[in-house]
Amino acid sequence: MKTLTAVSVAISLISGYASAQTIVLTDSEKGIEQGNWQTDSHKLKLAGADFSLRQQVLHGGKQEGSKVITLTSPGGLTIALSPTRGMDILHVNGAGVRLGWDSPVDEVVNPAYINLESRNGLGWLDGFNEMMVRCGFAWTGHPGVEDGTLYTLHGRAGNTPASKVLVEIDEKAPHTVRIRGLLKENTFKKSNLETWTELRYAPGSTSFTIEDSLTNRADYPRDYQIIYHSNFGKPLLEEGARFNAPIKEISPFNDYARAGLKNWSQYQGPTKGFDEMVFNIVPYADAEGKTLAMLSNRLGDRGVSIGFNTHQLPLLTLWKNTDTERQGYVTGIEPGTNYAYPVNIEREQGRIKQLQPGQSTRFALTYTLLQNAQQVKQAEERVKALQGGRDVKLVAQPIAVE
Amino acid sequence: MKTLTAVSVAISLISGYASAQTIVLTDSEKGIEQGNWQTDSHKLKLAGADFSLRQQVLHGGKQEGSKVITLTSPGGLTIALSPTRGMDILHVNGAGVRLGWDSPVDEVVNPAYINLESRNGLGWLDGFNEMMVRCGFAWTGHPGVEDGTLYTLHGRAGNTPASKVLVEIDEKAPHTVRIRGLLKENTFKKSNLETWTELRYAPGSTSFTIEDSLTNRADYPRDYQIIYHSNFGKPLLEEGARFNAPIKEISPFNDYARAGLKNWSQYQGPTKGFDEMVFNIVPYADAEGKTLAMLSNRLGDRGVSIGFNTHQLPLLTLWKNTDTERQGYVTGIEPGTNYAYPVNIEREQGRIKQLQPGQSTRFALTYTLLQNAQQVKQAEERVKALQGGRDVKLVAQPIAVE
Amino acid sequence: MKTLTAVSVAISLISGYASAQTIVLTDSEKGIEQGNWQTDSHKLKLAGADFSLRQQVLHGGKQEGSKVITLTSPGGLTIALSPTRGMDILHVNGAGVRLGWDSPVDEVVNPAYINLESRNGLGWLDGFNEMMVRCGFAWTGHPGVEDGTLYTLHGRAGNTPASKVLVEIDEKAPHTVRIRGLLKENTFKKSNLETWTELRYAPGSTSFTIEDSLTNRADYPRDYQIIYHSNFGKPLLEEGARFNAPIKEISPFNDYARAGLKNWSQYQGPTKGFDEMVFNIVPYADAEGKTLAMLSNRLGDRGVSIGFNTHQLPLLTLWKNTDTERQGYVTGIEPGTNYAYPVNIEREQGRIKQLQPGQSTRFALTYTLLQNAQQVKQAEERVKALQGGRDVKLVAQPIAVE
Repeated sequence: MKTLTAVSVAISLISGYASAQTIVLTDSEKGIEQGNWQTDSHKLKLAGADFSLRQQVLHGGKQEGSKVITLTSPGGLTIALSPTRGMDILHVNGAGVRLGWDSPVDEVVNPAYINLESRNGLGWLDGFNEMMVRCGFAWTGHPGVEDGTLYTLHGRAGNTPASKVLVEIDEKAPHTVRIRGLLKENTFKKSNLETWTELRYAPGSTSFTIEDSLTNRADYPRDYQIIYHSNFGKPLLEEGARFNAPIKEISPFNDYARAGLKNWSQYQGPTKGFDEMVFNIVPYADAEGKTLAMLSNRLGDRGVSIGFNTHQLPLLTLWKNTDTERQGYVTGIEPGTNYAYPVNIEREQGRIKQLQPGQSTRFALTYTLLQNAQQVKQAEERVKALQGGRDVKLVAQPIAVE
Repeated sequence: MKTLTAVSVAISLISGYASAQTIVLTDSEKGIEQGNWQTDSHKLKLAGADFSLRQQVLHGGKQEGSKVITLTSPGGLTIALSPTRGMDILHVNGAGVRLGWDSPVDEVVNPAYINLESRNGLGWLDGFNEMMVRCGFAWTGHPGVEDGTLYTLHGRAGNTPASKVLVEIDEKAPHTVRIRGLLKENTFKKSNLETWTELRYAPGSTSFTIEDSLTNRADYPRDYQIIYHSNFGKPLLEEGARFNAPIKEISPFNDYARAGLKNWSQYQGPTKGFDEMVFNIVPYADAEGKTLAMLSNRLGDRGVSIGFNTHQLPLLTLWKNTDTERQGYVTGIEPGTNYAYPVNIEREQGRIKQLQPGQSTRFALTYTLLQNAQQVKQAEERVKALQGGRDVKLVAQPIAVE
Repeated sequence: MKTLTAVSVAISLISGYASAQTIVLTDSEKGIEQGNWQTDSHKLKLAGADFSLRQQVLHGGKQEGSKVITLTSPGGLTIALSPTRGMDILHVNGAGVRLGWDSPVDEVVNPAYINLESRNGLGWLDGFNEMMVRCGFAWTGHPGVEDGTLYTLHGRAGNTPASKVLVEIDEKAPHTVRIRGLLKENTFKKSNLETWTELRYAPGSTSFTIEDSLTNRADYPRDYQIIYHSNFGKPLLEEGARFNAPIKEISPFNDYARAGLKNWSQYQGPTKGFDEMVFNIVPYADAEGKTLAMLSNRLGDRGVSIGFNTHQLPLLTLWKNTDTERQGYVTGIEPGTNYAYPVNIEREQGRIKQLQPGQSTRFALTYTLLQNAQQVKQAEERVKALQGGRDVKLVAQPIAVE
């Protein structure tokens, strides 16, 4: 195991934020890979801070060679993400609450063992267990064929190992930690989309921010789609748990979900045979586009909120997979540029966006663990304010048929 | 290379058998991977025993990263299996006889380099060279499409790296060694089948037992199918070699095999253009379900038998691939729950089994190397006794058309 | 990092050439993998020679675990090839000229992360960035379905990790270095093609030779096809750069290329929307089959030539991909047994060759970096002599429709 003394650390002034140390964990250009590695605020001589960082290389089964970075802040959050799986967030823990869920897939599957095209484009299901998966960026939704080509479930980003992984730590309190990764979706003649992902966390706090910058490095305009597939099971999800968001309009994804439309804000307990109901939501936001979606438990004393901006992520998918626990009892709260229909439907209905040559775009989401009734209530009041007394329009008819 | 001193060894009382040492070679939950490793009965201070155990990590070509465990018992058997390839048995040697065969695929292919869906579901052929492959457990036979989904040749188990690998060694003579592996066929919404495989061997003996426990960890009933594809080439297989089993009924798998039905018990030498003939067999067994299939050489002084139980594995497939040596001169003696037809045919004909939620089932097979004429004769007499003078019913018509 | 002292070095007399040292970098049979490794002429005590050799294991993104061997000869060439990607040549540098190009795929992608069947057989495009890729050997061209089986773009060789890698260094000046690799395209019942590749280079020179020996190890005749896809971008390729070869006949690959037929020898600068034009060429050669194709820059003072033998490689594909720089501004000069049509067309038109059981065949190509106007001129004169004043027959109609 390498410790910090063996790691190149640079003090650098990075544009846009404070003086910071940068630790390179992975760099495909420079041939750097730290492998098993750890440091902490004490070793880094950051007086007053209390956090540790660790990278582990996993073994066994289909997780052979997968890497996990864990950021631990006693009194705050412990956040685990995987550079091997698109910098996606595996799980977050804090204040006795786990953000995440229990999938039958219980390994951090190395994409080397995944065939996204298997089962007609459902191969992604062989690796799905994250608290947050980036579904994108070249395409995002359910598998579908367009112009004879199969677009596989939820795109490639989540099964793309990061080419570069950096940890940046602010010199000044609260010594904000940024874990950044570079994802390349590059195919000759087809795609040259690169994304710098960032997880940003101020030690001690109970919220963190994901901020991604997607760039089309091609000389041609390129489609992009993104859904931030954010997933929560127990303990937040339970019978009587509630979903809340300021909603302009909500419709069932398909006929099966029609039956659940009226009770969109309520969750069932684990229910055999339930499978999943999905709803398409147009959220309200404030003048700057800021909005909030949230999940709270039955008692209303714990929850999670996701703040995002509708100028970046105008749509919201609500995925209720309240089937049995072993089947994966989980709900997805999924801000996105798109709904989860296949490429051809998203295109027909005009939701696919494009980046011009060299153009970049950013997406930011702030996840906050709500640890008591007061915090839950504050979030609910924020939602209420955004709703502004307007009706939620329930649209009974699905907007598309897969 | 790690030796035993670096390995966690525990003395534990494992339910159902004697006090044993347990050595953990791989554990995906605990992040353990011993990599290159070895021990032996001397280091383990097992007086009177004489065996060694070794795990090697392979390199080069498509076997990069594949692991092989070799259990060597001078005077007994040397058994090689691969945790990377579903704990399947690569080859066994003893008494100057090799159990196994020569495939044009001469590497232990890491499943990371296999695409099971290639060539319309024949990707499995890019890795096939084992003495025993588990064809299962979610499905088992030839590739086929059911409800629009391609079920690839012989399932996924053989290309599933083991998530846990344990070696357990009995404290008491004969210091039986158990090499156990956990295989997970887990896909969100689709599959949650887990199998603990076991290879059990008493040092010095010339037989070993495979005993697998398959569990449906899902909350829904799940199909399962398994064929233990057990393969033998030279020196046992040769012109005049004989297959023997107590047979109630035998039929050709397809029209091509009809020509070979009458001579089901005989083998040809390597024969250009022969390709393969496959036969479906319903074996007889004793009252407890115990039965035996065997292969013996031309002189009848060497052979192999496979003991199994028809309550667990009611069917037997005989695969005669007596083509040229470079093409793969080999026969398969394959106890199973199923024949090797595609999923849709196995379903139509009612051979697919199910496990209820949480239910487990076990399969045990004992392979015995027959080292002289007397042992061959004894096995033949056991088969004869099981046949009990009843006729072998030859069914000329294949029971299905692929 | 291992240095030569840790490497098995043998002085051996290898049939056909001088006494040489052999260094084994990889051997799948013997379990050898040197990983990060280097040596040089000084350590090897080769007086008068000046070169170094290095193998690096890459990290990050989809190049995790890929290996690159770099042969550096100050004053001569620096040649980089990848054992993980079929011993293909990544890039060559010398005299201020780079042979190679800039693909949007900028990592040395480990085939573990490639699915050749994706996008209807275009998965190869996820890894394509080499100066020279072997497109073969079981098939070579565009993806196509024959007898219900998908043959993926450009075959499997380029995504086959070498099973053995040897470096052989002549004891005598000029201490020619041979980097040899064994590629196995082995599939049970389908394929048993093995290729020993060789890159041969005399330190200090500005040319190198590829010489491959392909063997059909099966007991049945097997098809083979090969195209040496040799690719050059900047600085040689530019507006006004010229392609030159002795041509008997040239035709457009498809309708789109018809517009470029007349100007086959000229290149455009980077041109938005150009995509690619491909031309099929029957080259002239001398009585021994020797011929030469070349690319030179606008000023005619730098270039590259490829010498090959039409008895081995009777056909030549010219690929003009003079699209924008980020799209991949590149031309391919591609000697082969075949054109780049799918298998079914190559078969219909009688270009697919076969090897009999045990039969081998060889292919040799010599790449020469032309560093000044005189060398360019000499190569042009060689082409002119081979043309012998005969007309280039322009065939307006594509010989096939994909």
